[in-house]
Amino acid sequence: MKLYSYFRSSAAYRVRIALGLKALEFETVTVNLVTGEQRGSGYLDKNRQGLVPALELDSGEILSQSTAILEWLEETYPQPPLYPAASMARARIRALCQHIACDIHPLNNLRVLFYLRDELQQERESVDRWYSHWIQRGFDALELEVSQENSLLSLGEQPGMFEVMLIPQIYNARRFNVSLNSYPHLVEREQRCLEHPAFAAAAPEAQVDAPQA
Amino acid sequence: MKLYSYFRSSAAYRVRIALGLKALEFETVTVNLVTGEQRGSGYLDKNRQGLVPALELDSGEILSQSTAILEWLEETYPQPPLYPAASMARARIRALCQHIACDIHPLNNLRVLFYLRDELQQERESVDRWYSHWIQRGFDALELEVSQENSLLSLGEQPGMFEVMLIPQIYNARRFNVSLNSYPHLVEREQRCLEHPAFAAAAPEAQVDAPQA
Repeated sequence: MKLYSYFRSSAAYRVRIALGLKALEFETVTVNLVTGEQRGSGYLDKNRQGLVPALELDSGEILSQSTAILEWLEETYPQPPLYPAASMARARIRALCQHIACDIHPLNNLRVLFYLRDELQQERESVDRWYSHWIQRGFDALELEVSQENSLLSLGEQPGMFEVMLIPQIYNARRFNVSLNSYPHLVEREQRCLEHPAFAAAAPEAQVDAPQA
Repeated sequence: MKLYSYFRSSAAYRVRIALGLKALEFETVTVNLVTGEQRGSGYLDKNRQGLVPALELDSGEILSQSTAILEWLEETYPQPPLYPAASMARARIRALCQHIACDIHPLNNLRVLFYLRDELQQERESVDRWYSHWIQRGFDALELEVSQENSLLSLGEQPGMFEVMLIPQIYNARRFNVSLNSYPHLVEREQRCLEHPAFAAAAPEAQVDAPQA
């Protein structure tokens, strides 16, 4: 499999984690979102939506949209599972995941920040405030949910789909200096996950297109 | 089951359609998003995320986030199916659905439009331009995808999960006077669906909280 990826894309980061948790081998093809490679014809032939990530199967078929890719991975490579087995528990995890995928992340991705800056003529400070606002609104709700859980991670002792979504979102928050002081339960989960080899291998700074330290 | 709904919420509209397609009975509990009922303690006790829709089961358990509710409905009431049976076809439909759920809809929901108006002091014209921009970016990609399909609807002759997502999004576009001239294939699907009783019953204007004509 080939993963079309950009080191800082948190949607690509999610898929990298899931591939690692399922111990699947893949080749990374980098797409530079800052120079606009995702809008070049080479990439658009692969993925008309012009977004990363995309997963190219050995058959040449291409999957797009991180959430669709994650569901396909779970269906196709069920071991180890990333969702709980019980239907209600799975619905609950999917709701937490969607809260990140729909209510936080899309408001803060690069094309939106560019629109705020270029079309709405917003200064850096205003763009940063926008960024923090949507993370805080979302994390406030997620912290409350997670604080009432008995388990340490979404599959008890093991990370699952919620952590696949959460850790890239916390990475984004840190990158934009959003205070995480109000979210001790979310940060605790992050710390547990960062020790895990699948999360370490998927981290932005471990990618081939990351700037060398 | 009880569905916490607001007539114009397109996320609630999705779930209304799916409940109708699966011929499931439910009671509607209205939550007025314009007066802020979703942030009142009565509703927050039910759904901490403070968003509609939420689905309350007869057991008292509550599901939130439309996409998680839709997946739960499909798992729990598999007939009639809303996804194709083949794994790759299902992944493709999920990707189209997520394109609406993540890359169009979240940018245009009410809380975001309020932020643009109140925090960023944008005039009505600028907010409308924002609204159109994200719909057009998304519909451009979806039109191209759909124009290359042989089938009329996502399950051949029957509407499925893509139409569950698409029809509410087209409703939003019409409401904000976004031109649909460039999207003949999307509009053709909409017209086919609007004749279907499940779509008619789920329409905003058919809801108890819609203003009387």
